[in-house]
Amino acid sequence: MTQNIYDTQAFFEAYQQLPRSVSGLAGAPEWPALRALLPDMHGLRVVDLGCGFGWFCRWAAEPGAAQVLGLDVSEKMLERAAAENGAAPITYARADLERLQLPHTAFDLVYSSLALHYVENLAGLLHTVRSAIIAGGRLVVSIEHPIYMAPMHPRWLVEADGRRSWPVDHYLVEGRRTTNWLAKGVVKQHRTIGTTLNLLIRGGFTIAHVEEWSPTDAQIAAQPALAQERERPMFLLIAASATP
Amino acid sequence: MTQNIYDTQAFFEAYQQLPRSVSGLAGAPEWPALRALLPDMHGLRVVDLGCGFGWFCRWAAEPGAAQVLGLDVSEKMLERAAAENGAAPITYARADLERLQLPHTAFDLVYSSLALHYVENLAGLLHTVRSAIIAGGRLVVSIEHPIYMAPMHPRWLVEADGRRSWPVDHYLVEGRRTTNWLAKGVVKQHRTIGTTLNLLIRGGFTIAHVEEWSPTDAQIAAQPALAQERERPMFLLIAASATP
Repeated sequence: MTQNIYDTQAFFEAYQQLPRSVSGLAGAPEWPALRALLPDMHGLRVVDLGCGFGWFCRWAAEPGAAQVLGLDVSEKMLERAAAENGAAPITYARADLERLQLPHTAFDLVYSSLALHYVENLAGLLHTVRSAIIAGGRLVVSIEHPIYMAPMHPRWLVEADGRRSWPVDHYLVEGRRTTNWLAKGVVKQHRTIGTTLNLLIRGGFTIAHVEEWSPTDAQIAAQPALAQERERPMFLLIAASATP
Repeated sequence: MTQNIYDTQAFFEAYQQLPRSVSGLAGAPEWPALRALLPDMHGLRVVDLGCGFGWFCRWAAEPGAAQVLGLDVSEKMLERAAAENGAAPITYARADLERLQLPHTAFDLVYSSLALHYVENLAGLLHTVRSAIIAGGRLVVSIEHPIYMAPMHPRWLVEADGRRSWPVDHYLVEGRRTTNWLAKGVVKQHRTIGTTLNLLIRGGFTIAHVEEWSPTDAQIAAQPALAQERERPMFLLIAASATP
């Protein structure tokens, strides 16, 4: 089973303070870029893998998605999702992405934000997803970028003159990375971009768009601290379609 | 026009000493991975963009490619290619990849090794390539990996205990990078992986395989210095097919 760090009290309390937890999609700087990859929601049957507090599910339901299924391993998050972002036609349910089961050809869109880098058996999950989505259906995901995830001791290197760089090591050594983010011992699965894309292609998807997220000029003007996110990518966004 | 650094005397003399110049494909550690992406050469019409000394052209001709066109901007390289790796059915010709012209649907395979990161107008080149290749035809390319190319002052960071990392900066700031590799002022064009893949997709290609090259265990056993190439990827390999 995927580590359920979100139900750890210390992690959950810290996670609740993040801008993206407080303000929802508006607090996630990569959201406008991810939204641009999404189709018109009207009438779609949507599943959100790792729905968290349900912000995306609510967003998808508003313009008229026919059906939205939000899945997460964290009971605490599902509880808050149902309380704050619950509405017809959204259903929230608990699921472990390592052993997910979904009905056959039941969805038009599979969405996942910052969840798949926790999954060890990504090939297995993509097999399930491909079977659950209609031919031509869309997959839109974000994960932590492997440049961000690869280092054994992720950190900024700051020179005396203030210049910053992000020292990369072990990029080509895939597998488990344990970091202390909000809580000690958060386990993630580092994969190269190539591995993730090849798993998608071999799993029956056609790659439509790959984006290594950068803040826009307008975002940096509004929030100057975001400028450092141009030194190295923090997020990888991928859109793919289920190959007929 | 693409900078023709290869015809600079100092650069050319140093380039001629590289293992890949002395030993050809056997001196390029990424060649086995690139070769694995290639189709059976028998009967194929092949063009090599940036053919250098012609090692690949000769390799393609041996198992029976029907026609091999090797293009390069460097007269010195083409001269040595013709002298050392010339044979029917290979033709060598001078071409600037910034303003390439190719006949329509004349090729089954477009190959390019470590050349496209010199090209500024990649969208234009891919448009020409897509028109020159048959539907379903294959594109197999290697470029310097953007992690390798992004930093303003590319270097290893070596800790007191010998651990190495590769400080990345300006990854999301695309454009010209000037480095001193073999000669001063070598100009390359940094693009993110996302940008390169999206240019391919929008240019009419379907992504088939993406690989961030890593030395194999056997290669490291034979040549221990290659171990550091696992810390950060030096090469990006892409296979795509011309979308019908």
